[in-house]
Amino acid sequence: MNILEQIKSPADLKYLSIPKMQALATQIRELIIKTVSQNGGHLAPCLGTVELTLALHKVFSCPRDKIVWDVGHQAYTHKILTGRRDKFSTLRKKNGITGFPNRFESIYDAFGAGHASTSISAALGMAVARDLNHENYNVIAVIGDGAMTGGEALEGLNNAGISKRKMIVILNDNEMSIAPNVGALSEYLSLIRVNEKYRRAKKDVHRILSSIPRIGNSVLKTANYVKDGFRNAIVPGGFFESLGFTYIGPTDGNNLEDLINVLEKIKINMDGPVLLHVQTKKGKGYIPAERHPDKFHGIGKFDIATGKPIVSDSIIPTYTAVFSQALVDLAAQDKNITAITAAMPSGTGLQKFSELYPSRFFDVGIAEEHAVTFAAGQATQGKHPIVAIYSTFSQRAYDQIIHDVALQNLPVVLCLDRAGLVGEDGPTHHGVFDMAYIRQIPNMVCMAPKDENELRQMLYSAIKYNSPCTIRYPRGSACGVEIQEEFSLVEKGKGELLSIGDDIAIIAVGSMVQEAIKAREELLNEKINCSVINARFIKPLDANLILATARKVKFIVTVEEGILAGGFGSAVLELLSDNNIYDVSVIRLGIKDKFIEQGTRQEILDECNLNSKSIVNAVKNFINGSDK
Amino acid sequence: MNILEQIKSPADLKYLSIPKMQALATQIRELIIKTVSQNGGHLAPCLGTVELTLALHKVFSCPRDKIVWDVGHQAYTHKILTGRRDKFSTLRKKNGITGFPNRFESIYDAFGAGHASTSISAALGMAVARDLNHENYNVIAVIGDGAMTGGEALEGLNNAGISKRKMIVILNDNEMSIAPNVGALSEYLSLIRVNEKYRRAKKDVHRILSSIPRIGNSVLKTANYVKDGFRNAIVPGGFFESLGFTYIGPTDGNNLEDLINVLEKIKINMDGPVLLHVQTKKGKGYIPAERHPDKFHGIGKFDIATGKPIVSDSIIPTYTAVFSQALVDLAAQDKNITAITAAMPSGTGLQKFSELYPSRFFDVGIAEEHAVTFAAGQATQGKHPIVAIYSTFSQRAYDQIIHDVALQNLPVVLCLDRAGLVGEDGPTHHGVFDMAYIRQIPNMVCMAPKDENELRQMLYSAIKYNSPCTIRYPRGSACGVEIQEEFSLVEKGKGELLSIGDDIAIIAVGSMVQEAIKAREELLNEKINCSVINARFIKPLDANLILATARKVKFIVTVEEGILAGGFGSAVLELLSDNNIYDVSVIRLGIKDKFIEQGTRQEILDECNLNSKSIVNAVKNFINGSDK
Repeated sequence: MNILEQIKSPADLKYLSIPKMQALATQIRELIIKTVSQNGGHLAPCLGTVELTLALHKVFSCPRDKIVWDVGHQAYTHKILTGRRDKFSTLRKKNGITGFPNRFESIYDAFGAGHASTSISAALGMAVARDLNHENYNVIAVIGDGAMTGGEALEGLNNAGISKRKMIVILNDNEMSIAPNVGALSEYLSLIRVNEKYRRAKKDVHRILSSIPRIGNSVLKTANYVKDGFRNAIVPGGFFESLGFTYIGPTDGNNLEDLINVLEKIKINMDGPVLLHVQTKKGKGYIPAERHPDKFHGIGKFDIATGKPIVSDSIIPTYTAVFSQALVDLAAQDKNITAITAAMPSGTGLQKFSELYPSRFFDVGIAEEHAVTFAAGQATQGKHPIVAIYSTFSQRAYDQIIHDVALQNLPVVLCLDRAGLVGEDGPTHHGVFDMAYIRQIPNMVCMAPKDENELRQMLYSAIKYNSPCTIRYPRGSACGVEIQEEFSLVEKGKGELLSIGDDIAIIAVGSMVQEAIKAREELLNEKINCSVINARFIKPLDANLILATARKVKFIVTVEEGILAGGFGSAVLELLSDNNIYDVSVIRLGIKDKFIEQGTRQEILDECNLNSKSIVNAVKNFINGSDK
Repeated sequence: MNILEQIKSPADLKYLSIPKMQALATQIRELIIKTVSQNGGHLAPCLGTVELTLALHKVFSCPRDKIVWDVGHQAYTHKILTGRRDKFSTLRKKNGITGFPNRFESIYDAFGAGHASTSISAALGMAVARDLNHENYNVIAVIGDGAMTGGEALEGLNNAGISKRKMIVILNDNEMSIAPNVGALSEYLSLIRVNEKYRRAKKDVHRILSSIPRIGNSVLKTANYVKDGFRNAIVPGGFFESLGFTYIGPTDGNNLEDLINVLEKIKINMDGPVLLHVQTKKGKGYIPAERHPDKFHGIGKFDIATGKPIVSDSIIPTYTAVFSQALVDLAAQDKNITAITAAMPSGTGLQKFSELYPSRFFDVGIAEEHAVTFAAGQATQGKHPIVAIYSTFSQRAYDQIIHDVALQNLPVVLCLDRAGLVGEDGPTHHGVFDMAYIRQIPNMVCMAPKDENELRQMLYSAIKYNSPCTIRYPRGSACGVEIQEEFSLVEKGKGELLSIGDDIAIIAVGSMVQEAIKAREELLNEKINCSVINARFIKPLDANLILATARKVKFIVTVEEGILAGGFGSAVLELLSDNNIYDVSVIRLGIKDKFIEQGTRQEILDECNLNSKSIVNAVKNFINGSDK
């Protein structure tokens, strides 16, 4: 019987010896590696934090004490230790254990996450509530050096520091966000990491200070003052001390004994805000992940022996790959094109651009707000910035999209990858809101391609429009259609009439156009002949095409991979109403008013009735109903 | 002829002597005080930056050099100097000079603003474009210490610092945002402000360093290292130096000679990112504003001699005042109620709460993202946080509203003040998007009161619902109705049928309900009898009431003070469509697909057809049309 199998709750760690905990760490790593190799998941971050999690649960007492995991992609060990070991094989599967902390899943998950940089704010909220309630537990935010560059984290530090409340921020420093971390703060941390130098300097300084000759009366005072200064300058962490935190570190975050010692001391001695800087190795304990922590950050199935991903034999490219190639092709023609990512050069397909055009490529770190305003600034000076960002993370820059881009009518192109349902990452990561929140913004063009060739042409067109523009496209494989090398303009606001039918029209947008085509074929077999429109534009709608069609048919089905409230179908209803077309029934297929859980993309698309079958059913129901 | 009248462009400052510039400063102040006393506006911030603006335009050459004003509420002197003196009397009036920098207004306005903390990101974008274009102008961001605590500003610093690009950030430190500034960074700056101490320490340190006895070989190296350390610690500004900036200051920001000297030196000598810390006096040169810089931050008409605001004799309270009282009344009954503002204790009506319940009140500074997640953290521990925020600024926390509040179904109440058209502050400040972007979020309740009594009861109800909840209400005076002291529950999702008519229904929400009532009365005079519904809820809609009404009438007018795309009327269309109601015509009144310029609230409401007359016209048009 191994140790892990005997752990029923974190309380079982309290009397475990260090060697036994080290053995436990190994067993946890094996379980994580095995599970992620089968289910996919966030491997490298979770391998890096095994010891840190063990130490936290040994020293603190959850759920009384609250651990807030930033992003939450490093919390598998926490899940395994807090009653979810037996179900861990269901990680990221439909109805299984979720990939991030989740308050609905466990009392040990003090705060849910998925997006970065929220932990300090949430933890401070808990600390405030605790103090108001005259309670006395510990609140601990665990945040990576990547997430620390997100504006909200810095807002959180600024507020936590001044509050003087008892809370602990653990800076989990692995020199990475997903890609290697960027920014001045990162460079600053890497200076701190040069441990020896600092330790030596500190020692020398003490020697110097005690040997200073007395020059008049003021010197001793100055010397003390100088010591205070050194606390900020020579002892690393002045940045955090400026913000009101007591800085402790750096500590080896993969050394259980060190971690337990320092956490015990903090627990017993410290009463205000403390920042403990730990250095962990991303991917620790699995050689392929240690070597390529970026590739093993979030990964699909892989072969444990080789570390090679298990991929299908399909030669159909992903939308991301097609975007990536289109962008470099366009950049070759237009030197004013620049590309911006918020810490996702690989995920968003900008790697190739960054290699070919390094001076025009900008990874701004986890800083979506900055990314968008930065793009707007570039656009004022004649650049055509492309901001490549996941739909779900663009929510972070919503105000900047309105205030800096759209209001000033600047030609920034937002490429929203992973728009729609993303699958296993679940509700924090689905990109289902964008059509509704983008289409309400004046001056904005919003489009979605039906296939990868259209994506290529839309990117070209977006730059030609020379206006604020959004292109949304889904996660995963494209359709396998032929891609036209030569660029051709998609006329702004022009949809595409794919087939002409009798009394029924299917108006689909983006990923759902293929389902509409399939549905038409199935319906044709039953002698039902539908029109199919590829809307292409969520905004501006192709009013002429949709109205002309609507005037001919009795029934319209709209289909969109997005939330229904205010979404694409809603825009069609507005158009019909504004044009006094009332003699047509409309069924809108899309995501209903709830958060969608995890599952494979296909599972949850089916759950949301986003497939050809649901379109066919909607049409048949109408026909049957109108027959009566 | 005074000096100001001779200034045609900033180039005219180049050969002006300091005494003449000082005289000019006085003349500019007089113009600003006079104009704002008549038009309202941002007085105190603009009075504080007269010398800074003069110095910038003397040393730099706009529009070739780019000045990016953060928030832009300090830019009147800039406007006056850059060709807008003659039109300055139209400040903030319809078709007049706008209250913020505006790219459409002047080539000298390098970047528009209105919301805080964007300037560094925008300026860095310009610096990048400049370098890619092989140009060589200066880019200067001017940002207050209040705006500096906003996450995006810190993201900007982090990226600008590492970029090593030539740019200047001027930290305009007046110890205030609108209210006194808060947070650890503010405390840190106040430490720096203790000038003498630092200067003395610095001098002493140099003396000490040159007198250090040599202890072996390593000492000189250490001593140099120590000097580096001092640059961060003793010389103030280590925080900014940590982020890759060269820190210079603090400098007296109301001393023209000092400012010109230091800016000249920076222009000539510095090549990377520089942060110049200037200390200005908010309200400088006008005693009432110096004494009460918060009251004179943004102000309406006032009497110059006394500094007293010129207010109407109306005794009708503002919505803000009613919210303020309701909140303290509720807080007296429920100790779990807390209140959070992002730097707007007075504007949002939390002043009273802060005085009565200081331990439950949190001003987090300009940090909307933090505010919302902080509230969510509190809510996990049994608190009922009320986040009072202007609608336009809530856009900053859109992701946090989804990810931290709604997804976790936490009982955070967002009170969106200034929802709808705000008037003179113009397009950056109108709160017109919230109904559309809030109603698309699952788990969220969204309501709008028809009058101040309903606001009071809705606040009570929102807390009772114990779920994510939004209440939106407009700027300015409420309706003058009787306010029921005793709280009563507004049933969730229940609208109010205000009158029953024949063939026509007006469904109005929030501020537009009164207009609907007026319209009904006018129409009654012409023997047209309308139903009027006070929707109360944007989400969940009162489906029963709306559907029952829709089944009886031929024509529905929806009226909302918000953007039409995806808004309230769109929700009504969705409801009708989902319930197969097609034999009713719907006209949606609301804000069309464009950004709305400034004007008095009434002027732009009328411009947007948001008044009883437009409702009456819509009804008559329908009747006339259907008669044909």
